[in-house]
Amino acid sequence: MQRHAEIEKAIERKYPEQVVLVTTRGKDGKANVMACGWTCTISGEPLMFILGIDDDSHTFELIRETKEFVVAYPHEFMKEETLIAGSCHGDEVDKIEKAGLNTQNAKKVKAPLISDAVANFECELVDIIKPGDCTLVLGKVIEAHVNTDSSLKRLCTVDKGHALSGVRPI
Amino acid sequence: MQRHAEIEKAIERKYPEQVVLVTTRGKDGKANVMACGWTCTISGEPLMFILGIDDDSHTFELIRETKEFVVAYPHEFMKEETLIAGSCHGDEVDKIEKAGLNTQNAKKVKAPLISDAVANFECELVDIIKPGDCTLVLGKVIEAHVNTDSSLKRLCTVDKGHALSGVRPI
Repeated sequence: MQRHAEIEKAIERKYPEQVVLVTTRGKDGKANVMACGWTCTISGEPLMFILGIDDDSHTFELIRETKEFVVAYPHEFMKEETLIAGSCHGDEVDKIEKAGLNTQNAKKVKAPLISDAVANFECELVDIIKPGDCTLVLGKVIEAHVNTDSSLKRLCTVDKGHALSGVRPI
Repeated sequence: MQRHAEIEKAIERKYPEQVVLVTTRGKDGKANVMACGWTCTISGEPLMFILGIDDDSHTFELIRETKEFVVAYPHEFMKEETLIAGSCHGDEVDKIEKAGLNTQNAKKVKAPLISDAVANFECELVDIIKPGDCTLVLGKVIEAHVNTDSSLKRLCTVDKGHALSGVRPI
């Protein structure tokens, strides 16, 4: 049975929610990474993603500048790395170094792949829209990569307060 | 370590993925429900969702007609109901009846709430866009409801082939 609730309280029941890492590389050659929880598939062929990325973030600045980025799925034991990617400012800190993330070159874009991720998707920018209070980046996948360890599962946000964990079916 | 992969193969590593039920009610008074896996939050204040809804679906027709809908989170034991909502055509079958879903009136929209869901969000249509091969419906939440049983968790898609299950943190 449903009872009426404040919108802010009701949305607390949304978990588990997916989380991705988004990498970029500025024209100065410096790579950056951020964590993003507002994301989903928006097209199958071509594969496209939408990402909620604040327009005052360093990642947004680099995406607007370079028109490309990589979406990576952190695996379930990459909690610390994902928290660092989500909690520092890329224009102040080298978050990839601080998080100890290993990277490798992508095939078509300059943004790096996250070596330990479950999968990486090279994206080119399709559009930027802002229907609400968050800027939304729409990207088309042009190349994909997967971890050679196919047993790795994705990390999720399992509760408020950035509680991150892998999950298993019940 | 990453290895290059076909895009269609790499995206198979996306699970677990969230799933929602979307309800609508036509001007003829008939209510409908569908399952949607391409969805995420796109704004915090106001709370807004994006939903991938094929433009040849009955749900899309009703959203375009009425400019409103409800997003419900099925709980982890609502696999059968969610599969039925996702696999029949609402213009041919009364999917709410077929799935045995209990509904109750919403506060501001005519689309029904799913009584057993984890939470329900009444939405008004904000925009319709089609950047790729799927029509995307953008909705603003205007009222929210939660299940009186706060222990209920959301259902997820945990593997390809519409494998649905609740999940637990490891």
